Amino acid sequence: MTAPPHEAPQAGPGRSLPDTQQGMRRRNLARVMHTVSAKGPLSRASVASRIGLTRAAVSTLVDELIRSGLLEELGPERPGRVGRPGSALAVSGHGPAGLGAEVGVDHLAACVVDLRGEVRARAVRHGTNRGRAPEPVARELTELIREVVAEADRQGLAPAGLAVAVPGLVARDGRTIVRAPNLGWHEVDLGLLMPPELLTAVDNEANFGGLAELWLGAETPRDFLHVSAEIGIGAAVVVEGQLLRGRRGFAGELGHVPVVPDGPACRCGGRGCLEQYAGEEAVLRAAGLEPGADRVALLAARATQGDQDVRRALRDAGKALGIALTGAVNLLDPEGVVLGGALAELAPWLLPSLKAELAGRTAGPACPVSVSRLGSDGPLLGAAHSVVRAVLDDPAAVAEPA
Amino acid sequence: MTAPPHEAPQAGPGRSLPDTQQGMRRRNLARVMHTVSAKGPLSRASVASRIGLTRAAVSTLVDELIRSGLLEELGPERPGRVGRPGSALAVSGHGPAGLGAEVGVDHLAACVVDLRGEVRARAVRHGTNRGRAPEPVARELTELIREVVAEADRQGLAPAGLAVAVPGLVARDGRTIVRAPNLGWHEVDLGLLMPPELLTAVDNEANFGGLAELWLGAETPRDFLHVSAEIGIGAAVVVEGQLLRGRRGFAGELGHVPVVPDGPACRCGGRGCLEQYAGEEAVLRAAGLEPGADRVALLAARATQGDQDVRRALRDAGKALGIALTGAVNLLDPEGVVLGGALAELAPWLLPSLKAELAGRTAGPACPVSVSRLGSDGPLLGAAHSVVRAVLDDPAAVAEPA
Repeated sequence: MTAPPHEAPQAGPGRSLPDTQQGMRRRNLARVMHTVSAKGPLSRASVASRIGLTRAAVSTLVDELIRSGLLEELGPERPGRVGRPGSALAVSGHGPAGLGAEVGVDHLAACVVDLRGEVRARAVRHGTNRGRAPEPVARELTELIREVVAEADRQGLAPAGLAVAVPGLVARDGRTIVRAPNLGWHEVDLGLLMPPELLTAVDNEANFGGLAELWLGAETPRDFLHVSAEIGIGAAVVVEGQLLRGRRGFAGELGHVPVVPDGPACRCGGRGCLEQYAGEEAVLRAAGLEPGADRVALLAARATQGDQDVRRALRDAGKALGIALTGAVNLLDPEGVVLGGALAELAPWLLPSLKAELAGRTAGPACPVSVSRLGSDGPLLGAAHSVVRAVLDDPAAVAEPA
Repeated sequence: MTAPPHEAPQAGPGRSLPDTQQGMRRRNLARVMHTVSAKGPLSRASVASRIGLTRAAVSTLVDELIRSGLLEELGPERPGRVGRPGSALAVSGHGPAGLGAEVGVDHLAACVVDLRGEVRARAVRHGTNRGRAPEPVARELTELIREVVAEADRQGLAPAGLAVAVPGLVARDGRTIVRAPNLGWHEVDLGLLMPPELLTAVDNEANFGGLAELWLGAETPRDFLHVSAEIGIGAAVVVEGQLLRGRRGFAGELGHVPVVPDGPACRCGGRGCLEQYAGEEAVLRAAGLEPGADRVALLAARATQGDQDVRRALRDAGKALGIALTGAVNLLDPEGVVLGGALAELAPWLLPSLKAELAGRTAGPACPVSVSRLGSDGPLLGAAHSVVRAVLDDPAAVAEPA
């Protein structure tokens, strides 16, 4: 017995395309791309058997993908055999690529990832963006983007789009930063400030971090909660391989889940929010340290050295995370929780109290908690890979090269 | 600019069917059914223009649906006009129907709903099921089901399936009640106890209540949180018109979101859970009343009479609900919160403190909270309608009548 059809999982490449012959062709192109991307190199016959289409149908689709520069043939598998040789197909390491960029509170970054998922160009600039106006930040980020695009061009790669990760809430239009308190930005339309010929999406860094975990994590489940921190604490809720965005695009505000109903006032308007106990600034304050650059590195260094105040502050933060996550796990029943971003670097000191809290508040087995291996690279990689995924999901949208 | 294609909404009738010519036909049959169901009576030409297929293609689909007893023709719209008259199509009020049943803590119920959504037969038996073994409860429920099926048969209706709402956690197999603490049931496979030729799904009453709200509510959004209570407090998380179930099927356990981290111990293993402040028994205790039958009616009557202890207890329960919902709203960013089940009947006394708490913890406009008009009928109606929806979503699965 399975779930009734009206609630069957809806995920899958190209599913939103129209249900016509043309839509079916586009979806099948996406199936071929995803199959070769996940399992390649593969022969045409292997692709056909894996996706349940005839070899002739697959060959037509493959030829189109080769002409578009999305697939390439690695040459005959076994020369000398009778009949057309079974040439192995691979995703192209040239042509269309993903371009990602990140506005951090203390850095800017850009990178190019090819369709195979390899990072081919990358640039980072350190320096605070707190209190800077959006225009000069966007200009500096654009310079960085031009650098990596030029480098990618030298390697025969052309970005199919640009996605930008930002430390703030982004509207569902995918371009307006509604508020980014740690930058001091409100209602900033990044679509007006970035290269219009490239920009495809702006999103919250926690969302791109969660997507990076979904796409690049070793054994990431398809239902999980990705918790990350830069200055604030954010989460990405991933359900059946899809990001849950919410009505306004603001889902995942774990940092503002009440942990102590009458706790200290928070800038969100609430009281006793998780951020008041486990945000970077709260932890620094609790440890008696001054906020400055490299806050996470400072906390990690002090904790490693055995500083009892820092360790206690991190233990208390882990406990608060455990309380907030108990609520989230009860609501969402995810397969796991992944700690990413700055939390990944501080995990050795956060995890014991976090896990104890989660287990102590659950009758059955507690939800597994793991630590992201992407750490603070997650949002930038997630942004670049979102462009790559868009190409894999609808390869027909990439025009054939001239 | 829209969301990238890999995250476009995936909802829609029949979307999970295979992507072949046959799958396309089945999806198009579902489109016709849903269009006539939502907008009918409609002529073939209107259906064709609404779903973007040719009139010839729609006529073939419509003929098949008429043969299967799912659509019927109301006769020529304008007799005497030249050419084939545009006969109006409507969803059939005969033939396949939805059969729903409910195991409540204090009652059993069953009903039959036709494809038009009308309740055509209904039966309820009051009496506690607390501590009763599953077998006699299932036998009594089966008798009730046979009654409404016989009544439906007299009206020319034949159930296309049976869905059962239960006050407990149901595994993703859609038949095993993992635990129903207020019945005292653990690991009960209802699939072995109910008529096997009929049973299609068992689900948590909060889930069916939420789905009923989605399908039958007047202006229910597609992203909302439905909060209901019988003895416990449960929620249904609906995202883009789909129920979020979680890995084990346990999502929506709002009753076990921590509200006060060091509050009283809860049977779930946690401390200070919402249920300890806003569950029926907690409210009765806080008001100095004895738990018995008709607990909700008792609270509502006393509150109406101006009993200050009851009013204070309900006010405090509303406050606790507001704290837990603040966390849920921050995580999910829903379009609204709907209070259903017993909470709907107590809403006049819960809502003011609930809304004040939610608004006081939010910088921007607070998430709207409304009250279900289905009240305690929600789960039973949701169960019956889930069978109706399954027919609308895949009409090809209903065999042509002999």
